[in-house]
Amino acid sequence: MDSDYGVPRELSEVQQKRTLYQPELPPCLQGTTVRVEYGDVAIAADPAGAHVISHAYPHTYGQPLAHFLRKAANVPDAKVISEHPAVRVGIVFCGRQSPGGHNVIWGLHEAIKAHNANSKLIGFLGGTDGLLAQKTLEITNEVLSSYKNQGGYDMLGRTKDQIRTTEQVNGAMATCQALKLDALVIIGGVTSNTDAAQLAETFAEAKCATKVVGVPVTLNGDLKNQFVETTVGFDTICKVNSQLISNMCTDALSAEKYYYFIRMMGRKASHVALECALQSHPNMVILGEEVAASKLTIFDITKQICDAVQARAEKDKNHGVILIPEGLVESIPELYALLQEINGLHGKGVSVENISSQLSPWASALFEFLPQFIRQQLLLRPESDDSAQLSQIETEKLLAQLVETEMNKRLKEGTYKGKKFNAICHFFGYQARGAMPSKFDCDYAYVLGHVCYHILAAGLNGYMATVTNLKSPLNKWRCGAAPISSMMTVKGWSRGPATTQIGKPAVHMASVDLRGKAYEMLRQNSSSCLLEDIYRNPGPLQFEGPGADAKPISLCVEDQDYMGRIKKLQEYLEK
Amino acid sequence: MDSDYGVPRELSEVQQKRTLYQPELPPCLQGTTVRVEYGDVAIAADPAGAHVISHAYPHTYGQPLAHFLRKAANVPDAKVISEHPAVRVGIVFCGRQSPGGHNVIWGLHEAIKAHNANSKLIGFLGGTDGLLAQKTLEITNEVLSSYKNQGGYDMLGRTKDQIRTTEQVNGAMATCQALKLDALVIIGGVTSNTDAAQLAETFAEAKCATKVVGVPVTLNGDLKNQFVETTVGFDTICKVNSQLISNMCTDALSAEKYYYFIRMMGRKASHVALECALQSHPNMVILGEEVAASKLTIFDITKQICDAVQARAEKDKNHGVILIPEGLVESIPELYALLQEINGLHGKGVSVENISSQLSPWASALFEFLPQFIRQQLLLRPESDDSAQLSQIETEKLLAQLVETEMNKRLKEGTYKGKKFNAICHFFGYQARGAMPSKFDCDYAYVLGHVCYHILAAGLNGYMATVTNLKSPLNKWRCGAAPISSMMTVKGWSRGPATTQIGKPAVHMASVDLRGKAYEMLRQNSSSCLLEDIYRNPGPLQFEGPGADAKPISLCVEDQDYMGRIKKLQEYLEK
Repeated sequence: MDSDYGVPRELSEVQQKRTLYQPELPPCLQGTTVRVEYGDVAIAADPAGAHVISHAYPHTYGQPLAHFLRKAANVPDAKVISEHPAVRVGIVFCGRQSPGGHNVIWGLHEAIKAHNANSKLIGFLGGTDGLLAQKTLEITNEVLSSYKNQGGYDMLGRTKDQIRTTEQVNGAMATCQALKLDALVIIGGVTSNTDAAQLAETFAEAKCATKVVGVPVTLNGDLKNQFVETTVGFDTICKVNSQLISNMCTDALSAEKYYYFIRMMGRKASHVALECALQSHPNMVILGEEVAASKLTIFDITKQICDAVQARAEKDKNHGVILIPEGLVESIPELYALLQEINGLHGKGVSVENISSQLSPWASALFEFLPQFIRQQLLLRPESDDSAQLSQIETEKLLAQLVETEMNKRLKEGTYKGKKFNAICHFFGYQARGAMPSKFDCDYAYVLGHVCYHILAAGLNGYMATVTNLKSPLNKWRCGAAPISSMMTVKGWSRGPATTQIGKPAVHMASVDLRGKAYEMLRQNSSSCLLEDIYRNPGPLQFEGPGADAKPISLCVEDQDYMGRIKKLQEYLEK
Repeated sequence: MDSDYGVPRELSEVQQKRTLYQPELPPCLQGTTVRVEYGDVAIAADPAGAHVISHAYPHTYGQPLAHFLRKAANVPDAKVISEHPAVRVGIVFCGRQSPGGHNVIWGLHEAIKAHNANSKLIGFLGGTDGLLAQKTLEITNEVLSSYKNQGGYDMLGRTKDQIRTTEQVNGAMATCQALKLDALVIIGGVTSNTDAAQLAETFAEAKCATKVVGVPVTLNGDLKNQFVETTVGFDTICKVNSQLISNMCTDALSAEKYYYFIRMMGRKASHVALECALQSHPNMVILGEEVAASKLTIFDITKQICDAVQARAEKDKNHGVILIPEGLVESIPELYALLQEINGLHGKGVSVENISSQLSPWASALFEFLPQFIRQQLLLRPESDDSAQLSQIETEKLLAQLVETEMNKRLKEGTYKGKKFNAICHFFGYQARGAMPSKFDCDYAYVLGHVCYHILAAGLNGYMATVTNLKSPLNKWRCGAAPISSMMTVKGWSRGPATTQIGKPAVHMASVDLRGKAYEMLRQNSSSCLLEDIYRNPGPLQFEGPGADAKPISLCVEDQDYMGRIKKLQEYLEK
C-alpha cells in the first residue's frame, strides 16, 4: 500500500498548471531573517474555564502570543533567530480531508529547506495510524511535485481521527523519540488540535524534546476564535458548494416545479451553510444556531417551511431551494435529547434492536413517530467526538416528508391553493471535500506551513500557527502563533445540553455568531430571498480572471478587531 | 408570474464577466452575404425505415442538405440571399433545461437584427405552455443582457415537454398564425425535435406559412447522427460532473474506506457517464449499452462489482468510485421487462396497490425480491416518452445493497479478506443542469442561433440547424441544415425489446457506439483504472486560462467522416 503514496501521477491540463502556481509570502516571512516578538500572555476567552484549563495544561497554558516580523534595520540582531541547525520534523494529516492540506506540507518543506538544506521533513502515512506505527515517507520536491495546490490528503493519506487515549499518546511519543523529531506538526480541526495540545502538554511533562505545532485545517470553518480568523479548506468548500447550490437555484427557476432540500456538510456548526447562502441567495437557510437559540421543534421548522411554500405559491412560485446544515438535527431540542438517550444506551452497550422499550416514554413516542429510514440513521453509533453521524442522518428527507404531508393536508383543506408540493433532496459534501483548493486556500495553507517552521525554530511547544488580517491583500497578512490551550473552552460550560464530558477543556468549536455581521447580512436579505428569487451564481471556482481572488463573504464582513471579538465571545459564553 | 421573466438581475463577478463574453462566428457566417448551397437529398440512415418515414413526412422528407457558405468573389449574386425582409420569429424552450440554451436565443436575435432591424424575435413564456397560451416576451438586448452565456432556461422558463397531440399541434399552429410568425424555433433534444418535425409536416400540409426549425440542445448528448456531432449542454454537464467525480476519487483515495456509487444523469444512453469516465478515470463505469449488448442480469453486474472490490482488496485498496448511468435500469433485461409489465398495467389504468398479484409469476418474484425503496420507484408513472422515471430510480443504491450483501457473505465465508465493504451513494444531475455553460457550449449555441436565421431566411421548413467539424477551431466550423426527418429511425426496428409505439418514426436516440473510438479508449484504460487508481482531475470548469478551451474527449476522438458514420449506424441498426 505504502508504495502508492506520494507517487507522481497523470495530471490534467488544469492540474498541471496549478502545480506551477507559486503562492507568495507576506513581507514578514520573506528571507531568512524573520524575527519573533512576544506579546501578552494569551488568555482563554472563557474566563470561567481558565482555571480548569490552566490546571489541565500547566506547562503549556499561560504562554505568550508570538508574532513573526520582518527584521527591520534598527532592530538588534539578538531578536532574529540567526541559527538554524538542521531539524527533523514530522507531519501528519488528522481528521477529515480539507482542500489545501497539501500546501501546508509544501510551505513547511520550503521553509525548512530554505533555512537548512540538511533538515528533514517526514510525513506519516495513513494519518495517525502511520504516526503510531512509524510508517513514514520523507517529503522531497519530487514527492511534492504533483500535489502542489491540489486537493485531498492522498499524498500521505489518513485513517483514524484521534490521538487521545494514553496508549495513543504514548505511541505518538515513542515515534517522536524513535525518529528523533524536533517537532511534530498536526494538520486538523477542533478535535485534532485539542489532541495536539494534549500531546504538547504530555511531551513537556515527560521532557520529550519534540515540540508540537497545530495548523487550523478543516472545511467546517468552526475553528475560529480570537486568534484564528478562518480555517484552510472552508473557502474552497463554500465555493464549490455555492456553485452547485446556484446551479440548483437556476434549475428550480427554469423547471418551476421542484423544491430542492439541500443538506450541507459542515458538522455541528452552520458556517458552511451561512457562507453558501450569502454567496448564492437560496430561498431559505435554516441555521442550527437559530434553531437552538429559539428552541424550535421539528414541527416549528416544518411549519416555517410550509408557510414559506404557501407564501411563494401565492406569488405563483411553485419551486424553491432550501439549505439545511447537517448539524441541524443536533440543534433541534427534542431530536438532540433523543440522540443523547440513544447515545447513552450505546455507551452502556445496550443492544439497539428493540430500542423503543429502552427509551423514556416521550423519546420512545418521538422515535416511533419518525419514518423508518431516519430511525435507522439515528441509531448509528456516534462519532469519536460523541456527536451523531451527521453525514448519515438525512434531516433534509425528514423535513421534506413532513412538509409534503402538511402541504397535502393544507391542499385538501383548501388553505393552500398552489400546485402539488414536490421535493427533491440532496446532500452536498463528499463531492466538494476532495476539490482543488481555491487560490485563497492555496495561499493561506502555504503561508501557514511557513509559519510552522518559525514556531519550531523559536522552540515553541503547544502553539497553533496563525495568519490574520486575511481579508486584506496577502502583503498585509500578519503571521504569528498562539498557544492552543488559550483557544479552549471547557465543555459543558457552553450553551446547549450538557455532554458526557463536562469539565474537559477542548479547543472551542465556534458556532455561527447570531450577533455577527455575516448573520446580520443574511437576515437583511432574507425576505427578498424568500419571495423574490434573487438567486446569485458565484460561478465555478476560477483560478484565473474574475472571481479567482474572491474570499469568503463571511470572512470579509466580520470585524477583525481582536479585543472586540474576545469580548463578543465572552458575552456569548456568559449568556 | 410573467413579470419575472427576462428581468435584469443581480450578478456575481464571474456572471458579469461572462455576460461580456462575445462568441465569434465562423467565417462562413460573418457579414450579411451568406450564401446557401444545396447538397444531395438527405436520406435517413435507417434504410429499412425510410419508407415509413417518407410516408409519414411526405412534405418534409426527401429535402436536400443545406450548407451556409461565405460569398466568394466569383460566386454569382443569385446564390446569395440578398433580400432580408422583416421577419417575425417565435422561439421556445422545450424539454429539460440544458446549459447554453440562452445563447441560441442570443445568436438568433443577433442574426435577425443584423439583417433587418425591423424583424422581431418573440419568446414563449413557460415553454410549450406559453406557446399554446400565446404568452410571449419580445426578446430585446435589454432582456438578453443578464442571460448571455448564463445557464438555465429561466429567461423564458419551461414547463411541459411535448407538442404532440392533435390538440397541442393545432394550438401551436393557431399561435403561429395569430402572431403571424414566419418561423418557429424549437430548442430541445430527441423528443422535442421529433415534435418539431411533426409540426413542420402538419404546417406544410395545412399550408401554414410558419417554418419550423429545430436546434439540438440536450445535456444527454444522445441527439447524434450523420449530421449532428453533439448537442448543446453536453460539454458543460460532463465538465461539471467530471470535476465532482474527480473530487470523489480524491476523497476516496484520501479517506481509504469508502466505495462511492455515483449515478449520472443522461437518460437512456450512457454518453455522459462515458465522457465523465474518460475525463476522470474512476475505477469502474457500467455502461447501459454494454449491459444490454451482453444481456447482463442484475446479479451478473453485482458479481462484476464484487469481484472488482475483492481484487482491489488484495492490493490493500478498500475504496473506489463506480459510475452508473441512470439509464442502466432499463438496460438490465429482467428489470426492463418488469418495468414494461408495470408500464402496461399503468396503461390499462390498473391500480398498482397490490401489483404483485397482477404481474407474471417471474416478474412478481423479481419484484418481491427487490428492496422496498426501489419497488416504490419502479411503480412511478412513466415519462411522456414512455421511459421510466430514470432520475427517481436509485439503481446505485440497489447495486450498493446487493454488493454489500454479497461482500458480507464472502467475508463470512473467508473468500474475501478485505475490510468491511462501505458504500456511499450519490446522484449527480440536478446540480449540473443549471450550470453556467462552458466556452464550447456558449460558442456552439450562439453559432447555432445564427444558423437558425439563415435556415428561415432560406425559407426551409422542418430542418435542424447543424454545425460540424466541431473538434477543429471555430474558424473551421461548417454550418448547415438537415431535414429533421432524415435523422429519424423507426421505433421498434432498433435493438432492444419492442416498445408500444412500433412503427412510429422518431429522431434517432443514439446509444454509445460500442465500436466507436471513445469506447475503445475507455476499455484500453479499464484495467489500470480498476486496480491502479489513475484518477485524473480535469478541475472546475474554467473560463480563462488552461482548460477553458477544452472540448469533450468523446467528441474529439471520434471519426468525423460523415459517410463512415452513416455506414456504422446502418450496420448497427441491421444487427
